[in-house]
Amino acid sequence: MSLIVQKYGGTSVGTPERILNVARRILETKQAGHQVVAVVSAMSGVTNRLIELADEVTGDSKPSEREMDVLLSTGEQTTIALTAMALNAMGAKAVSLTGAQAGIETDGVHTKARISTISPAGVHELLDDDHIVILAGFQGKTSDGKITTLGRGGSDLTAIAMAAAIEADLCQIFTDVDGVYTCDPRVVPNAQKIPEISYDEMLEMASSGTKVMQSRSVEFAKKFGVPFEVRSSLNTNPGTLVKEETMSMESVVIRGVSLERAQAKVTISNVQDFPGSASRVFGAVAEANIMVDMIVQNVSHTSSTDISFTLSKDDVAQAQSVLAPVIAELGEDTTIEATDGIAKLSVVGIGMRSHSGVASEMFAALAEAGINIQMISTSEIKISVTVAEDDIDKAAKVVHDAFDLG
Amino acid sequence: MSLIVQKYGGTSVGTPERILNVARRILETKQAGHQVVAVVSAMSGVTNRLIELADEVTGDSKPSEREMDVLLSTGEQTTIALTAMALNAMGAKAVSLTGAQAGIETDGVHTKARISTISPAGVHELLDDDHIVILAGFQGKTSDGKITTLGRGGSDLTAIAMAAAIEADLCQIFTDVDGVYTCDPRVVPNAQKIPEISYDEMLEMASSGTKVMQSRSVEFAKKFGVPFEVRSSLNTNPGTLVKEETMSMESVVIRGVSLERAQAKVTISNVQDFPGSASRVFGAVAEANIMVDMIVQNVSHTSSTDISFTLSKDDVAQAQSVLAPVIAELGEDTTIEATDGIAKLSVVGIGMRSHSGVASEMFAALAEAGINIQMISTSEIKISVTVAEDDIDKAAKVVHDAFDLG
Repeated sequence: MSLIVQKYGGTSVGTPERILNVARRILETKQAGHQVVAVVSAMSGVTNRLIELADEVTGDSKPSEREMDVLLSTGEQTTIALTAMALNAMGAKAVSLTGAQAGIETDGVHTKARISTISPAGVHELLDDDHIVILAGFQGKTSDGKITTLGRGGSDLTAIAMAAAIEADLCQIFTDVDGVYTCDPRVVPNAQKIPEISYDEMLEMASSGTKVMQSRSVEFAKKFGVPFEVRSSLNTNPGTLVKEETMSMESVVIRGVSLERAQAKVTISNVQDFPGSASRVFGAVAEANIMVDMIVQNVSHTSSTDISFTLSKDDVAQAQSVLAPVIAELGEDTTIEATDGIAKLSVVGIGMRSHSGVASEMFAALAEAGINIQMISTSEIKISVTVAEDDIDKAAKVVHDAFDLG
Repeated sequence: MSLIVQKYGGTSVGTPERILNVARRILETKQAGHQVVAVVSAMSGVTNRLIELADEVTGDSKPSEREMDVLLSTGEQTTIALTAMALNAMGAKAVSLTGAQAGIETDGVHTKARISTISPAGVHELLDDDHIVILAGFQGKTSDGKITTLGRGGSDLTAIAMAAAIEADLCQIFTDVDGVYTCDPRVVPNAQKIPEISYDEMLEMASSGTKVMQSRSVEFAKKFGVPFEVRSSLNTNPGTLVKEETMSMESVVIRGVSLERAQAKVTISNVQDFPGSASRVFGAVAEANIMVDMIVQNVSHTSSTDISFTLSKDDVAQAQSVLAPVIAELGEDTTIEATDGIAKLSVVGIGMRSHSGVASEMFAALAEAGINIQMISTSEIKISVTVAEDDIDKAAKVVHDAFDLG
């Protein structure tokens, strides 16, 4: 008997029929002799409808965040009740728990709270009493009883944090993909499902466009050493196991290739090279809540330098407008230029640490295919380049081939 | 400065626009210098949609009552969040509380729990801090944290119980009628709104078809001495104040006339007159959850007697079927006969206690109008008769006139 935490997202529980499918799947796990805690999200569409209602009663004002949490948490609460009653109707012993009831305590930052502690005594008691526990994802409560929500990717986080708290043997994240692939199979048809991947590789894949999960949940799993499996709720294929790196993982140099499209590049030229100039640029960008991805600044050869960064092309106009006053202060000759039609290609692998030549192999493959590299940025286990968006599919194929990932 | 509890039903908060109206109304009360706790119901239609979802995931089985409470309580939780954020958007300080958060503790009888205690410290704290409190009606929690709902009329009960717990100066039940009338104005055009009515009169009116509120909430208000006002959410007219009886109330002999249509009469004839025969009849009926209204049994003149009772005509077929085996045991000659097309007319008034002649005046008025009385039943402050349903409007008019209520 194992103790298993499962997580089903909004699409998996999007209709009463799908809730019944999820319930059957949970029941099968229980009938196989395991203890089960199933974390469920709001039915897809529900959260958006609640946000619309909030907008209708608040007009031009931003809805109060405290009340937004009270409102949105009803979405998961609806799903837990429906899932538990579906299981009960199938003859199973199941009970639902809200985040608050399950002892998930958070800080008081409404709409993006962080989990502070989990008191799983109640969950253990129910499991010991042979119950299936259906737990609301995405939500918790403050120490003084206010309802909070965890923000984007919150239900994954609930599953992984609860798995850590109850020392589950396995945490299964059910989603609409089969697992993590060496590259997007729509781009590279011979891409392979990765059976095992380390937390760090998963994080780098996530931050490079392979959006199976939010980085936040992977980071949490890494911090508390919770192994988890990403798998499909539509079939019974084994998925991808995400876990601590092992010796054998290092024998694979490159785990996968990930892509991010619809990027743009902003270059600020002739920045006077004094301390604080970069901080002023990115301070202004951060204040506008614009997410920046790659940042590249080369060694300056004169008294001025160039700074480039990439961002979603949707944010370009806003970035230019918040940077305009900053540019004026950075130097008389300082100019800003933005280009979209950019895509990012990354190779990721912990084996990269112990192998040289990965970069040269990647660059050679791209060169041979006649693809021009615009920017280069590296981390310990990742090499990213930007190329013209029109070249990205071809780039993915040749790099994927170069590292024999097919 | 008064401490006022207001309650708004599902129709009053049925759309975002109506929620804004309710919010404005709450804000006006606050701006008039009062402390306000506003109890709100689920938006009309929401509860039915949730029940449909439950039916879809449970098929032929009855949904688990524990989970039904988790599900249905999301309805009020949605409304409190929307109402509080609407008020916040208007610049007011408002916070929402679920039943559990407001310290409303109940027994564990899911779907029809009874309030056991209310710990209003949190509510007081928010009020003292100048907040408007928006409280979810209809719900509470058990001492071990399970979500419960209070059953039909639950939101009225929440308002009255909270008013008692925080010693509110006034409890206002906002509804879609202007108050309690001497008779249904659609039937008796010169019916008058009753400015003040005693709990007992209100109870008798409620049990005689004037369905402004469930008896349960009125009983609770009586038990804890909570005065409350029934008034319209659509205008600012004063409503009807329901309170302890006063000396002046007794000077009015008849407070009002109430009607109940669509009734049926079941008569069981030649029941052998032995102890327990009535209990067998009504035991069988109660077990089938059929609500019986009037019960009439006259003194028996032989060894057998006749028992009649009234009930909703929708329940007649079921009543006949559950009574069939009982009839067979009650005596060889015992027969059962059911008739629908019946209506009930009641006159109610605490002044009746100290005045004789009410019955004769009522019966005379009906006789003069050529209306035949079928059954008669009385309580200390009420006289009810059944007549043919076709006669009920005329009967209401002549009785209303006979007691000068217009």
